[in-house]
Amino acid sequence: MSIVFTDDSPGLTDVKGFAVAAIACDIREKGTDRLDLALICSKTPCTAAGVFTLNDVKAAPVRVCTEILDAGMPVHGIVANSGNANACTGAQGLCDAKAMAEGAAKATKLPHNSFLVCSTGRIGRAMPMPRILTGIEQAATALLSTPAEGQRAAEAILTSDTRPKTCTARFEWEGRTVTVAAMAKGAGMIQPNMATMLAFLCTDAAAPAALLRDLLSAANKHTFNAITVDGDMSTNDTVLLLANGASGVDMTQAPAARALFAQAIGKVCQCLAEKIVGDGEKITKVVTIDVNGAKDQAAAEKIARAIGNSLLVKSSWYGEDPNWGRLVDAAGYARTGLDEEKLDLAYDESPVLLKGVAQDKNLPRWKEIVKQPRFGIHLNLHQGSGTYRLLASDLTEGYVNYNKSE
Amino acid sequence: MSIVFTDDSPGLTDVKGFAVAAIACDIREKGTDRLDLALICSKTPCTAAGVFTLNDVKAAPVRVCTEILDAGMPVHGIVANSGNANACTGAQGLCDAKAMAEGAAKATKLPHNSFLVCSTGRIGRAMPMPRILTGIEQAATALLSTPAEGQRAAEAILTSDTRPKTCTARFEWEGRTVTVAAMAKGAGMIQPNMATMLAFLCTDAAAPAALLRDLLSAANKHTFNAITVDGDMSTNDTVLLLANGASGVDMTQAPAARALFAQAIGKVCQCLAEKIVGDGEKITKVVTIDVNGAKDQAAAEKIARAIGNSLLVKSSWYGEDPNWGRLVDAAGYARTGLDEEKLDLAYDESPVLLKGVAQDKNLPRWKEIVKQPRFGIHLNLHQGSGTYRLLASDLTEGYVNYNKSE
Repeated sequence: MSIVFTDDSPGLTDVKGFAVAAIACDIREKGTDRLDLALICSKTPCTAAGVFTLNDVKAAPVRVCTEILDAGMPVHGIVANSGNANACTGAQGLCDAKAMAEGAAKATKLPHNSFLVCSTGRIGRAMPMPRILTGIEQAATALLSTPAEGQRAAEAILTSDTRPKTCTARFEWEGRTVTVAAMAKGAGMIQPNMATMLAFLCTDAAAPAALLRDLLSAANKHTFNAITVDGDMSTNDTVLLLANGASGVDMTQAPAARALFAQAIGKVCQCLAEKIVGDGEKITKVVTIDVNGAKDQAAAEKIARAIGNSLLVKSSWYGEDPNWGRLVDAAGYARTGLDEEKLDLAYDESPVLLKGVAQDKNLPRWKEIVKQPRFGIHLNLHQGSGTYRLLASDLTEGYVNYNKSE
Repeated sequence: MSIVFTDDSPGLTDVKGFAVAAIACDIREKGTDRLDLALICSKTPCTAAGVFTLNDVKAAPVRVCTEILDAGMPVHGIVANSGNANACTGAQGLCDAKAMAEGAAKATKLPHNSFLVCSTGRIGRAMPMPRILTGIEQAATALLSTPAEGQRAAEAILTSDTRPKTCTARFEWEGRTVTVAAMAKGAGMIQPNMATMLAFLCTDAAAPAALLRDLLSAANKHTFNAITVDGDMSTNDTVLLLANGASGVDMTQAPAARALFAQAIGKVCQCLAEKIVGDGEKITKVVTIDVNGAKDQAAAEKIARAIGNSLLVKSSWYGEDPNWGRLVDAAGYARTGLDEEKLDLAYDESPVLLKGVAQDKNLPRWKEIVKQPRFGIHLNLHQGSGTYRLLASDLTEGYVNYNKSE
């Protein structure tokens, strides 16, 4: 028994019982017909779980999702928009997020409080509610389970992304197929604890909300929470998992089935996390930072994040300069108490430092490695068993230019 | 009695009894005759104090300075170079730093272990010792107390800086003049706890090392430690204060004299800290971030640093876009438990948020404010009495381009 994985799937319409619709509502008020509203719907009720931003400033839809999930009632879908984050919008923003969720329930004739809501885009702007509510009504009459509509829904949640991000994992259990499919967005404001990213996972597995929560949290920790583009954590980060049970396979019945399900969720999250970094705003490199031998995992993570968020390190990656001094400097200012004389450092397979001593003869090889679009940094502190892997991008002039105004 | 302050002074040669020399040793091995070695010397013995980087990875000269200061013996001067940081250079680096200090003592015929040593430049390269030692010998025969040589010494410690940074504070005490003069360098790798910056303060006051240490630490906290260009903390940060007593004024005799002395040191550090941010690598804006009403000072500092180091915030400053949503997002991910509905935020005097509600009518004024080369951000959390002020720069395409290779 194993997972069959597709990283260019149609997305959510890959899952039995889920239909989606994508609509253009001109939420950015720029007069374009860019898709900016997605409705995701299961006629049969779903159990659901979510993971959210840890930012003190939580956007209104994040607060509404938390409320709905905490109530523990069955969920029927998600309504999501790009173009406006509905963050820092006060009491009006909260009303608007609730009105979106209620609008989706009414338009699909499904129960009150059964829709989750997500927004992404500029912070601090009022939502253009009349257009959004009209859009939701149109979407409810246009729900489809076709691959094409799945892709359009994946497009509708994008902001600065250059491409939709979807994938599907499937496995067989006692003659039945269980599917986990997902779509995500995210390209900037990406760091710790998710950042401006939305990811929606749908599955036809049957599983109680508590199990979904455990599996999603576990997967999230080493995937969406272990990436960085710019070190900025957003107000809107949301990962949702909906399970409608349409496969007829109950994940509480067999530990082996549950293990496969956990693996499928993990693969889907990992794939989307990689796609998010790979589509980071104007990036040219994706770098895997592996820290090993730290005092503990927290120390390993601090060091990996110090390296992955250092402007000087990220600029040198962009310049394809194997400037290991900046790496060691960043590792040092994480202030975990590292011992310079114990450090082993390598670019891919090529040693840079062995017990703190530079292996300068390898410089030509380092130069080749950092020219690649993807490479790895391996740092061993030889102080304990703490490990952490962070996926990071470089920093380019394009990023600064792109973000200097909106 | 008050302080007379000059922010374009000749630097260290402003102080009675100090002589300096600047030499070109081609330490970067680029065949240029750029000044890159400075010798600072007082024939009479000095008390001395230092503040150093908190990076786990400390450059060899930082370790040597700490040793010499800890020994508590009189100090006669400083030898400093640019072009090579002598960091991550292992046992050889430590020998080289000691050899520089010893070279300076021998060449000036002053006692063993009486010279401090500082380096700044690229990390992880062996020091070109023969040229450096020859340079030190030449410098020892060329010591001058002229304003011109003071400026040349200030030039010799620069790396990516575009201009030398010096200033002088003077005050009268019982008919005698006490002078505190200084020079500094620093333009990139600038954040918490000093970053790649060197600052040397010399004074003709008489004061025990313990008093110098207290006054320097106190001044450092709100000046050199409260600036950020790129959030990167260096391996070499060093602030030194040498006092040769030539003024004949003993700071332990009168609290009022000590207060003036403290004020003079504070002004000198503040001026140099501002010059360092103002000369940040390829910056176009200097922004003062004032956080008030936080639960405590630590919370205020966390928020100020989150804002001042956010790539998105810094990019928007560069673009002269009054994007307050990014500011609030960054304040929120500092995770101090702020309450969005209590936030007051202003650009200079113009309110952006009042109790969390956006004052959109002021947008035209915000746009004018962020067009200025300097402006202020005032955030009040209304949660307590914690305050912090951080001086930060914008992030430009020029920074990334400048740092993509060395």
